[in-house]
Amino acid sequence: MDNRKGFHQSLEELQRDLLRMGVMVEEAIFLAVKSLAKLDGVIAQQVIAGDEAVNEMMVDIESSCLRLLALQQPMASDLRVIGTAMKIVTDLERIGDHAVDIAKTTLRLEGEQLLKPLVDTPRMADMTKDMLRDALNAYVKKDLEIARGLEQKDDAVDKLFKQIFLELEELMKSDPTHVHQAILLLLVCRMLERIADHATNIGEWVIYMLTGERQELNH
Amino acid sequence: MDNRKGFHQSLEELQRDLLRMGVMVEEAIFLAVKSLAKLDGVIAQQVIAGDEAVNEMMVDIESSCLRLLALQQPMASDLRVIGTAMKIVTDLERIGDHAVDIAKTTLRLEGEQLLKPLVDTPRMADMTKDMLRDALNAYVKKDLEIARGLEQKDDAVDKLFKQIFLELEELMKSDPTHVHQAILLLLVCRMLERIADHATNIGEWVIYMLTGERQELNH
Repeated sequence: MDNRKGFHQSLEELQRDLLRMGVMVEEAIFLAVKSLAKLDGVIAQQVIAGDEAVNEMMVDIESSCLRLLALQQPMASDLRVIGTAMKIVTDLERIGDHAVDIAKTTLRLEGEQLLKPLVDTPRMADMTKDMLRDALNAYVKKDLEIARGLEQKDDAVDKLFKQIFLELEELMKSDPTHVHQAILLLLVCRMLERIADHATNIGEWVIYMLTGERQELNH
Repeated sequence: MDNRKGFHQSLEELQRDLLRMGVMVEEAIFLAVKSLAKLDGVIAQQVIAGDEAVNEMMVDIESSCLRLLALQQPMASDLRVIGTAMKIVTDLERIGDHAVDIAKTTLRLEGEQLLKPLVDTPRMADMTKDMLRDALNAYVKKDLEIARGLEQKDDAVDKLFKQIFLELEELMKSDPTHVHQAILLLLVCRMLERIADHATNIGEWVIYMLTGERQELNH
């Protein structure tokens, strides 16, 4: 009985840690895109340095998952909750890596002038952060509706990405000197689109956890 | 005693399944890049259709992992082998997704003429497939040296990617009508570079499994 209680406390701690890791990578996305919009190398370095803590967090959470699985004999439903945590943590770590890649883009462009002020890119970043928060909430609250709602939000991000893609393509066509920067900005937006995919993945894991069914949210 | 033997048989089956899944995504990369080099929509469709089997394989392997973890009480070393399988399967699934994205690029370009015959892109694809095979061998053979060797191979892929990047950039600068296709080819090469990163990730999981230490192979 006591043991069981210890198990559920550990499970709650695990979920709290996942949320904390989620906040860390959310902050990393925010700072990375801010560093790019201001071409501020100091902020970019901060994002890059912060990634180690995200990676450590991943290792800690994974160890907790394995310990919970091995030392306790979780029931089927708890088993899926823990298995899902192991998938989510991988997505969060990748999101952190994307934030680092965006910050590295800032360092490559530092000292240049931006072709135009970044408006859509920070908007896209906000949308992906919002999706990430939804995904983690869906997991912790076991909320199927929130998880399913990610499909529509991911479509909106994809749409914005396509629009930015076309704009950058036109910029490149209009003036060859724009090509270098436009490519880098395109890759940044592609990373943001990937971050949205990771949030959508998390939503899919949650649906699987709750229903046992695989549902593609990402078309 | 019998139970223990059953466990090790299940573990071996799990590893065989992982290798099979590895072969499937290797084939997907090969076909996707072939479809692109020939702008052959039929092959591209084949890659896209094949992704469902990859996803099913992922679900199966994950279920096996959770079952092994829950029903048996694996010892610490087996625990890590299973935990690592759960990470690897995610990387393999993402590699499959990238192959699909490359195949979709073929469909977007179908009917056009390629700016120039693809030489470096198939070469990059071969390198990433080679890395993937190494990564899975390192896992199954518990071979630290093979895992560590991925670092150097990943550097070679990164170097080739940078070279292709510069070439495509020059193509875009030289003629605005090249921009659209060059962007798409650039994104394809970026995906191949990501596939190499996934193989490198697998190498990192293997090192962690064998030594308990996290080592960054990807700089």
